[in-house]
Parts: sequence; structure tokens; C-alpha cells
Amino acid sequence: MKLATLKNSRPDGQLVVVSTDLTRFASAGRIAPNLQAALDDWQTISPQLSALAAQLDAGDIAGQVFDPSMALAPLPRAYQWIDGSGYLSHLERVRSLKGSKDEQLQSTRPLLYQGGSDSLSAPTDPIVATDPELAIDFEAEVAVIISAVPMSATREQAAAAIRLVTVCNDVSLRRLVLDDLQNGFGFFHSKPSTAFAPIVVTPDSLDGAWRDNRLHLPVRIEVNGTLFGQPNAGTDMHFDFADLIVEAARTRNLAAGTIIGGGTVSNRHDESLPIKRDGIGFACIAEARTVEKIKYGRARTPFLKPGDAVRIGAVADGRSVFGDIAQIVALA
Amino acid sequence: MKLATLKNSRPDGQLVVVSTDLTRFASAGRIAPNLQAALDDWQTISPQLSALAAQLDAGDIAGQVFDPSMALAPLPRAYQWIDGSGYLSHLERVRSLKGSKDEQLQSTRPLLYQGGSDSLSAPTDPIVATDPELAIDFEAEVAVIISAVPMSATREQAAAAIRLVTVCNDVSLRRLVLDDLQNGFGFFHSKPSTAFAPIVVTPDSLDGAWRDNRLHLPVRIEVNGTLFGQPNAGTDMHFDFADLIVEAARTRNLAAGTIIGGGTVSNRHDESLPIKRDGIGFACIAEARTVEKIKYGRARTPFLKPGDAVRIGAVADGRSVFGDIAQIVALA
Repeated sequence: MKLATLKNSRPDGQLVVVSTDLTRFASAGRIAPNLQAALDDWQTISPQLSALAAQLDAGDIAGQVFDPSMALAPLPRAYQWIDGSGYLSHLERVRSLKGSKDEQLQSTRPLLYQGGSDSLSAPTDPIVATDPELAIDFEAEVAVIISAVPMSATREQAAAAIRLVTVCNDVSLRRLVLDDLQNGFGFFHSKPSTAFAPIVVTPDSLDGAWRDNRLHLPVRIEVNGTLFGQPNAGTDMHFDFADLIVEAARTRNLAAGTIIGGGTVSNRHDESLPIKRDGIGFACIAEARTVEKIKYGRARTPFLKPGDAVRIGAVADGRSVFGDIAQIVALA
Repeated sequence: MKLATLKNSRPDGQLVVVSTDLTRFASAGRIAPNLQAALDDWQTISPQLSALAAQLDAGDIAGQVFDPSMALAPLPRAYQWIDGSGYLSHLERVRSLKGSKDEQLQSTRPLLYQGGSDSLSAPTDPIVATDPELAIDFEAEVAVIISAVPMSATREQAAAAIRLVTVCNDVSLRRLVLDDLQNGFGFFHSKPSTAFAPIVVTPDSLDGAWRDNRLHLPVRIEVNGTLFGQPNAGTDMHFDFADLIVEAARTRNLAAGTIIGGGTVSNRHDESLPIKRDGIGFACIAEARTVEKIKYGRARTPFLKPGDAVRIGAVADGRSVFGDIAQIVALA
């Protein structure tokens, strides 16, 4: 089942089911007013959404043309957005870049940060920064949306709570990261609004690409139309989504509709940019710059500047599985 | 105007207006389904709520008996909970305790952390911890709920966005703070569910106690029935709520319904516990322990243990302005 949230006059938008080929949609407004309401009562609501999706795919309902530019984030405002660190090579590359005080890698327990979830960006919203000199970067990630998870949940409970999968862009202002980390209170100013792909998909509708609590698909990133990276999200993911959820629930319950990010997708390699046709590349600029510093003594790839375009999408058989995030950098 | 959210079958509870003397309530269900919905359209909704409150106070509506034990947190789940650090003496006392790597005080710009907002505790919910050895502490704070604030907001915009005031208990697991800070990703496991008083009050209904973007009232804390502190929230608040909101909006928009905490209320003094009749005391255990370490060479006041009771409320003319938070520590 594939779902999206379209713009309407309400802050939580209009829940719709999307056809398997992403070309058409049907409103789910008579089943649930929005995606959060569906997640609040998933056992009851999801079979109804699934039945509607089957009717749409069978042509029993004509539906309307699905235009990704009409999509909001699946949860335009969420009660929780927790970003994890599933990929150790991202931490290795970025921590050395930002000179973290604690260089020891956390390979036994994943790092998590509490992100702002009140204003999540639509897939085509601009990346708005107040200053072009903030070292504006993207981070292409896989994210899951879960049902409620109790404190001290087991891996089995965590895995069973995964309802929907998508990709997101955890926009980062690298120049503010060090300040945020040094004051000890964690990321805040350095992590403005995260953007989400237009479509969320249930794990069972991912045609086998969802296995071992990981998405086994390349996430393709283009900057200004040029391929920047296509790391496979199922490769080198040291902590899977069950691990991340278990860690998030160590001292607290997690409410339905909590979004968990897997961290910047990152595969181990030492290639630098420009990426070769079958190269892997990077899912954020900071990693590319670290590899360049090691290889060439200095970073070559610039951070984003106003007007730059970033496109992010997970790809299967040449098609964008969740639709693309396509953002342009703008000044506030 | 005084509002509360009472338990019903829905996750967001039932919005009610409460009489000025906190003895009676009337359902506001015909005006707005819940407090978030009221905040989403405050210009339209608040005059209607205010009119209902006037009818209740005038006796035109009988209302029902207000029982604080039926209250949820005003926003049982919120889109954002940001905790600030308005009181420097709290930072001074607690930072030396926890051995923060960066001891330099942030007197020019307030620290903020992004808290979990998906599961906020009712005023009488237990404080649930997985382990009694986690150094369970309370933090008595003033909090405001705001309407939407744009990125790079001015102090005037920030002050004008303050809709509702209350007190909260930012429960802290001190033994996990150092881990959270050292990994650099900020508070996470050390900050489980924050609890809120049953009543939220508009600034204009605080009888002059709301001035200069601060609440000028003592916040009274009892542990197991013994007075622990009564610092005045309007005293020694270096950063006021407008400062905190401006800082929170530096790189991002803030959605309606964002909750901003002022940080643990803390007045400058060097008295230790037990508190004298007119003493000031502390709004968290960690501060008391720091003063004891300096005075006596060791901390005397224990952290909370299962079964301990904490009571927190702001007091005016001997009455609890927002109703009390009254929690008992329990093991998961």
C-alpha cells in the first residue's frame, strides 16, 4: 500500500492512497482525516486503506492524476522525529570533519538525536536558510513511521511496529553543528526542517526490498542534475531500524506516528567525486569533503548555495519508489 | 482565561474552560475538538473560549466539578517541546555537577534542547523509570505555549506569540545525562516524559504576575510532603521567554502549539537544605547536591527512589495558579 498527503486547507493535509505505479490517487478522507489519525488506529484503518488501494489499482476507481508537487510531507507535522546513526562510515567521515570531542565510534549502541518535527517540509519545498555561509548540506536517509512502542521494547516489538517506509532529506547547516555539539545540548540550530518524499509505502509493498529491517535499495542523489551518490541503504547499515527503535525506547514510550531516521546512507569506499557511472558517491556533501581532504589535502566540493537544486529518491528498476525529494536552496 | 484537557477516549483529550477559582469546568468541545485545534486557529477560537469562560464564571453555565486528577497534559502530545535555559544559576550549579566539557557559561545566548513531545505526562501520572539507580530528578519549570512564529522572528513577534502559561516537571535521569552529553547528540535517554500542570492560563489572566515575558511567582516544590524549594520564577531569569523564542526561531519556523520551557527555576543563593520557612531552596535535586558538595564536601540529598512523591505548583496568594503536578516515582 502506498499513501501520500496532499495539500488542502488544513495543516495536516489530505490523506490519499496512491496507485502502485504512482500515477493516480484516490482520497482516503472518508476513511481517515489524515495520516496521523490512520496511525492512531492502524489495525482498524489500514485494511480499509488497503482495500481502497486495491480498488484503485484494479481500475474499479478511476482516481485522479497524482502530481508529486501537490504533496506535503506524509506527516506535515509529527509528534516525534528521531534521527539515528545506522551507518558507521557516515559517523567516521563526518565526525573527523567536524572535530567532535569524542572521536570514539559508537559501534555498540546507535546515536540518536531528537529532531524538530513541528514543521516538516514537503518534497518540493525550498531549503530556506538565513545565511548562504552556513555550509548548507543535505543528508539523504531512509525513514520509517511507527505505531506506538512501549518503553524497553524488544527487537521483535520494534520490528513489528514499522508501518511505513520512505526517504527524507535531513537538511544540515554544517557551520552551526560544532556550536550545537560543543554546548552539549545537541543539534538544534544546525538541523532546520527535514524534507520528505511524497510517498510512504508499507514494508510488504516494497517487493522484497524491505528485509532484515533495512531498505535494500540505492538512494540516488543529484545536485544540479549531476549524480552525487547512489549508496545502497541496505549495505553497511550497522544498526538496523529495529536497533534504532529499541534504543529510542530505552527510557520512554514512543507514540504512534513517531518517525525514525536511519541516518545518512553511507557505504564504505574511498572513491572521491566526480562519481563514476557505477560509482557509489555520497549522500551528503560533508562526507565527500572529508574524503577529498584525506586524498587531496583539501575539500573541493562546495556546500550548497542559493539556487542549487538537490534531488533525492530511492530507486528500484529505474523508478523512484517513494517519488523524489526535489528542493532548491533559497534565502529567507 | 483558564483551559485544561480532560481524559476521554481520544489521544488528544477533551478541551475544557475552567472557572477562575479552578473549581468548575465547562466542555469546549463545540468550539474546538482539542487544544491544538484551538491553537491552530487562535484568533477565531480564543474569543469563543473566552466568552464561554465568562459565562462559567458568571454562573450562567453551572459547569461540572473540576477534578485535577482527570486532567491530561494540556497538550498530551505536542508537535514540539523545546526547553531553554533561562536561569544561569541552574546551569552554573548543574554543569559543575555533571562535569560538562564546556564549562563556559552561555550568558549571551540561551541554550536550548529539543525535547520529546510525543507523550507528555498528565499532572498525576507516575514518573516511570526502568531502573531506580538512574538518579531520578525533577526540574520545576515555567512553560509557555505559542502560536506560529516565523524564522528569524523579532523579540516583539516572539512576545506576541505567547498564548498560554503553565508549569512543568522536566523529569531528568542524571546518571544518563553525561552519556547523552558526551556523545554530542544532546539529551535523549536522560529526558523521559515531561509532566505538565492541569491548567494553562492566558498571560492577561495572571493578575499582573506575567510581566517582562516572565512569570513573577514562586514555584513551590515539595518532596514527600516536605518543602524543597520556592524560588521565584521572575527572579534571576536572565533570558526571558521572548529571548528563548527568538533563539529557537534562529534557523527555523516554529509551529502553533510549540511548547517552550524556561529551564529549571533557579535563584542565586548559597543556602543548603533543609529549607527555612522563608528560604528559597531548589527546583531540582541536582542543584541542592552541588551546594552541599561545596559546603560539606559531599552531597547529602538523595535522588528520588520508587514511591517518592513530588509536588510542583506556582503559588499566588496561597493558591496553586495552574493546579499542582503531583507525581509518584514508579518502576517500569
